[in-house]
Amino acid sequence: MHTTEQLQHLLDTAIQNLKFPDQPRQLYDPISYIINLGGKRIRPLLVLMATDLFDKAPEEAIHAAMAIEVFHNFTLVHDDIMDNAPIRRGKPTVHEKWSTNTAILSGDVMMVEANKNLARINPIYLKDALDTFNETAQGVCEGQQLDMEFESRDDVSIEEYINMIRLKTAVLLGGALKLGAIIAGASDQDANLLYQFGENIGIAFQLQDDILDVYADPEKFGKQVGGDIIANKKTFLLLKAFEMAEGDSLQQLENWTTTKQFDNLEKVQRVKQVYDTLDIQQLAKETMDHYSNTALALFAEVGVSDEAKANLLNLTKMLMAREY
Amino acid sequence: MHTTEQLQHLLDTAIQNLKFPDQPRQLYDPISYIINLGGKRIRPLLVLMATDLFDKAPEEAIHAAMAIEVFHNFTLVHDDIMDNAPIRRGKPTVHEKWSTNTAILSGDVMMVEANKNLARINPIYLKDALDTFNETAQGVCEGQQLDMEFESRDDVSIEEYINMIRLKTAVLLGGALKLGAIIAGASDQDANLLYQFGENIGIAFQLQDDILDVYADPEKFGKQVGGDIIANKKTFLLLKAFEMAEGDSLQQLENWTTTKQFDNLEKVQRVKQVYDTLDIQQLAKETMDHYSNTALALFAEVGVSDEAKANLLNLTKMLMAREY
Repeated sequence: MHTTEQLQHLLDTAIQNLKFPDQPRQLYDPISYIINLGGKRIRPLLVLMATDLFDKAPEEAIHAAMAIEVFHNFTLVHDDIMDNAPIRRGKPTVHEKWSTNTAILSGDVMMVEANKNLARINPIYLKDALDTFNETAQGVCEGQQLDMEFESRDDVSIEEYINMIRLKTAVLLGGALKLGAIIAGASDQDANLLYQFGENIGIAFQLQDDILDVYADPEKFGKQVGGDIIANKKTFLLLKAFEMAEGDSLQQLENWTTTKQFDNLEKVQRVKQVYDTLDIQQLAKETMDHYSNTALALFAEVGVSDEAKANLLNLTKMLMAREY
Repeated sequence: MHTTEQLQHLLDTAIQNLKFPDQPRQLYDPISYIINLGGKRIRPLLVLMATDLFDKAPEEAIHAAMAIEVFHNFTLVHDDIMDNAPIRRGKPTVHEKWSTNTAILSGDVMMVEANKNLARINPIYLKDALDTFNETAQGVCEGQQLDMEFESRDDVSIEEYINMIRLKTAVLLGGALKLGAIIAGASDQDANLLYQFGENIGIAFQLQDDILDVYADPEKFGKQVGGDIIANKKTFLLLKAFEMAEGDSLQQLENWTTTKQFDNLEKVQRVKQVYDTLDIQQLAKETMDHYSNTALALFAEVGVSDEAKANLLNLTKMLMAREY
């Protein structure tokens, strides 16, 4: 077993050692750029932790971890085009810094690079790893599609929303963990338990994000509190509020989500008042706790010692302990 | 051994049986749309012919053939965005019919679908097949990048041009053939000979396209003769003409490629006159013949009987016998 710091060190070294061809520079420079913007590297860490969980050398999983990280960065590059996002991690997005065409094509070749990394794992696990990786990648694409479609729909149900964040965010956490388990030679049952653990914890993370956007301590929150409200983002909170609101509350929600002219602070405050009237924060927390408890119950069933589980459990708790 | 018609029938059935998820429709409808626009299906046919060449059942290679066809269509969808192309095979391109975002994301999921198909081949060949597929895919992306860069450069050499068409067009023919050989259990040497055969024949095809664009019989040519000249496309012919032209010929080329106002027919005629003065058609044919002869010499070295080689040889000759 390794400490989380040891695994992170292994990861940092591998990311630094990721090599891409020199030419054509316009194609490969954006890859180094986006990957070196940083990020928490949670997804590749999950691959290594899952392999380590079954007492197999995490070095065995390093190429799969790189595949997951490169794939994740590919989705960021393409999503940023689709979402018309100018900034990523405080820096210009790839399509802003280069061009949309460059961002499309560099993204495409990142997908190939992700697959190349994956192909370097022990061939006896390759078929299983590919199936998991491809299913995960497909889910992520479907999630992005649903997310885009939801923007122009006004009848999105909570169930549809949970399914969208499951696909867009959670399956990649599940897929990362399952990949690590496969490479450790874990049983199908344990590999699938880890997948479901990751999926449920991923949904809980996203619900936490939704809550934090409104209720975070502005001094500790990295971005503008209320950003989702200002943008009419269909989060769990807004969808739940629309589901429950009647009379004046419903009128308030409808007004504030349709008016084009508004003061940001006032809009955030008024929508938040509706949320408070309907106890939306509490409902969101209960739903988040449901997914996080389901995740922990699934994790408890994985057939390794509590000692071996401590690292992954600590990481999960740390990630779930962000303040609001 | 199978006839080409038998292999084409196998292919058509497999393409009709390609199944994609129903939902989200916006994500998957464009995949069926682009694949059902047709095309000559040369690339997947090459996979099956290569497997058949080594007397292995072509059914074994059908998933690899589908991987190549879906991948090829993915590149069409993304290239059409980048090239701002409104029409593909007489119908609106995916980004025109749906939207650029849909075309980006459907393309992405097509890449995943291609990989899913590939993962269904006999696992004992999976590692080799993936390496070939990924290297091919990477080459195709690099070729598209170079093609885009060439548009804004005025110092593209013939050598660079040949390398670009090698990557953009030829490696996929080579990769398709090599995949088929791998799945047939052919020797590394034979698989690599087939790859090089495909690469050289692919370069010859593209040079033939360049020649046909100018010298085709307008009655038999599917599109406007001289389209490349009108668009100042840096084909072998134009690059070679610029390399050789002096004095008045050079002046003519410079004028006609820089003037914004012109009559299409006149421009085609005048540039063609320069080509004729410099004997460009003959030079292009000689270069094409060089690659096609190299291809045939490599094919001759493949360690199977002439009888077994007849089908692939006939297909190649048929494709090279387009009129001009």
